[in-house]
Amino acid sequence: MKELEERILKDGIVLDGGVLSVGGFLNQQIDTGLLSRMAEEVRRLFADAVVTKVLTVEASGIAIAIAVATAFGVPAVFAKKSMTSNIVGDVYSSSVHSFTHNRDYRMTVPKRFLSPLDHILIVDDFLANGAALQGLISIVKESGASLAGAAVEIEKGFQGGGDLIRASGVRVESLAILDSMEQGKLVFRS
Amino acid sequence: MKELEERILKDGIVLDGGVLSVGGFLNQQIDTGLLSRMAEEVRRLFADAVVTKVLTVEASGIAIAIAVATAFGVPAVFAKKSMTSNIVGDVYSSSVHSFTHNRDYRMTVPKRFLSPLDHILIVDDFLANGAALQGLISIVKESGASLAGAAVEIEKGFQGGGDLIRASGVRVESLAILDSMEQGKLVFRS
Repeated sequence: MKELEERILKDGIVLDGGVLSVGGFLNQQIDTGLLSRMAEEVRRLFADAVVTKVLTVEASGIAIAIAVATAFGVPAVFAKKSMTSNIVGDVYSSSVHSFTHNRDYRMTVPKRFLSPLDHILIVDDFLANGAALQGLISIVKESGASLAGAAVEIEKGFQGGGDLIRASGVRVESLAILDSMEQGKLVFRS
Repeated sequence: MKELEERILKDGIVLDGGVLSVGGFLNQQIDTGLLSRMAEEVRRLFADAVVTKVLTVEASGIAIAIAVATAFGVPAVFAKKSMTSNIVGDVYSSSVHSFTHNRDYRMTVPKRFLSPLDHILIVDDFLANGAALQGLISIVKESGASLAGAAVEIEKGFQGGGDLIRASGVRVESLAILDSMEQGKLVFRS
């Protein structure tokens, strides 16, 4: 998506350790106009798909999930993150390793929010190694729901997670794919 | 807001300890149609106010903040919660006591996201004792921005936080105000 790529080039900040900061327009402060246009683009990309619910993981995925679910006219569901492996109640859960924080966490979704009749579109802000996305895919499979695919705002293509998940047969659409961030220079996949 | 009150009566669950669970339509799963209509109602209530940014605190305030900011056509800003009192960087911060988790935390907003030229509408999902809202108000005051007021989805009127903040001169609009939850029976302020 051209507008998103241009905005990343204009306002994104490359920090030490290969971190791309987009906190000023996508993250801690959100340009809601851009957000709505990204949601419409996701709806266009998945126009041929049946989508009954949008699923993401808290907290940074909530904004784009709300916008995409609103564009489709369906509910949004959030997986919660928990540091404990003690999961109580009737939930689907998945263990995920966070490379950002170098620790494991569990994501959980109450069973009553996902049914085998659902067609789930997974949405997230970033896709890098794909650990969070794999966790959400595993929860969808466990629930017996159909997986329409996944849509993310920014994919770090050079980390390979997206292509690995595509190779497993899941449809993944990213609004901007970075193929390189070396020396602070951003190169998008065309 | 009639639709919200009826939905709370239909799908809200009163748990032990006076907790009202609305996870099925306002929280962990979100009815995006209802969310959009609540955002339009907030825009109507503050139609006479100047609003340049919507401010909330992560994570449960994000959904309604995104919807309200989209309705106003302005950016949304999220205060982050931190368990440490060691705040680094150029941020506004406020210490808040969480009665739900019985511990203190700090909320922080980068200074670059709030300016004295801004008119801030604070948005949150719940208002009970008002600690989180007081923290956000304190951050707005510290920044020198004008405070247009606060809008919340559900106020627990019997806990008094909302009326205390109103008495301090801040405009607080709640879409539903519960005056009692005794024995699981919900009574709304008319």
